Amino acid sequence: MKTDFLEKLKSFDIPTCLRVCAGTDGSVTFLLEIMTRHEVSVVTEDQHIVKADEQIASLLDIDVGDEVNCRTVTLVADGIPYVYARSMSPIGRMPEAVRRDMMRADIPIGKILRDHGIETRRDFDKIGIVNGKGLFGCDTVLSRSYNIIHKSTVLMRINEQFPVDSRWNL
Amino acid sequence: MKTDFLEKLKSFDIPTCLRVCAGTDGSVTFLLEIMTRHEVSVVTEDQHIVKADEQIASLLDIDVGDEVNCRTVTLVADGIPYVYARSMSPIGRMPEAVRRDMMRADIPIGKILRDHGIETRRDFDKIGIVNGKGLFGCDTVLSRSYNIIHKSTVLMRINEQFPVDSRWNL
Repeated sequence: MKTDFLEKLKSFDIPTCLRVCAGTDGSVTFLLEIMTRHEVSVVTEDQHIVKADEQIASLLDIDVGDEVNCRTVTLVADGIPYVYARSMSPIGRMPEAVRRDMMRADIPIGKILRDHGIETRRDFDKIGIVNGKGLFGCDTVLSRSYNIIHKSTVLMRINEQFPVDSRWNL
Repeated sequence: MKTDFLEKLKSFDIPTCLRVCAGTDGSVTFLLEIMTRHEVSVVTEDQHIVKADEQIASLLDIDVGDEVNCRTVTLVADGIPYVYARSMSPIGRMPEAVRRDMMRADIPIGKILRDHGIETRRDFDKIGIVNGKGLFGCDTVLSRSYNIIHKSTVLMRINEQFPVDSRWNL
């Protein structure tokens, strides 16, 4: 893990539950369900397959032209959106059962990995508070990126954006 | 995961940060550091090696007589104890570098696994609110047990006990 990830996160003066969701090395959907005590819905905004360009190939450590599944979802609990998450997964690296569940929309990634008993670790990359560009109706969002590693390769690269506001006073 | 683990946890009327720490499928030490914004110390209360009796052998899916490392620690942040954790790890299953760090006291398990890039999943077993028997000076503690799975076998079985009181209003 990058040491500055944790130090940076600790320095943010934001609601505790937001800091926790943006910092966990476990499942975010699962934490959100525990925090809100409501079931979390995964609302799929977009799902499509691309062939990796040089930048994506470098990020995922795959070959240019390899197929990548791109999925964008919003995590919603009790009618309130809490997380906007984009994932990129090299098609060839996903175990068959994982691929099937990823293509069927609306299943959280943590649940997919758990259901199929996939062993992973999460390697943090970047975190920061950035311009929200209207997302969640917020001026600023907390953005973080990390890789889910399985069998020593990047199974998924994830970027999550969290609204920085009082909805996290849970 | 046992479905009733999550439902039971959601039903507990306890501080949100306690519910989150007792529910995460990621590192507890790490969440505690993010919540409290203080470094977390691991205070080793006890560490010894036992030969597995029938009950331990069955829990860890090893042979009777196999060596097991037993470690008991308290996690402390800003002078306040938050978690009392007991782990049992079959010696023969620990990668060499992990074993060395486990024997050197005072390194959190999540950090050991992260430092050595170990891929895992956490399988929850039991959760409940029980008599605190004076631990943390509390009448009741929240107790949970889970297994850390690596290469499809139990690498560690962990029981954590959390004080049920207002120290979690973070």
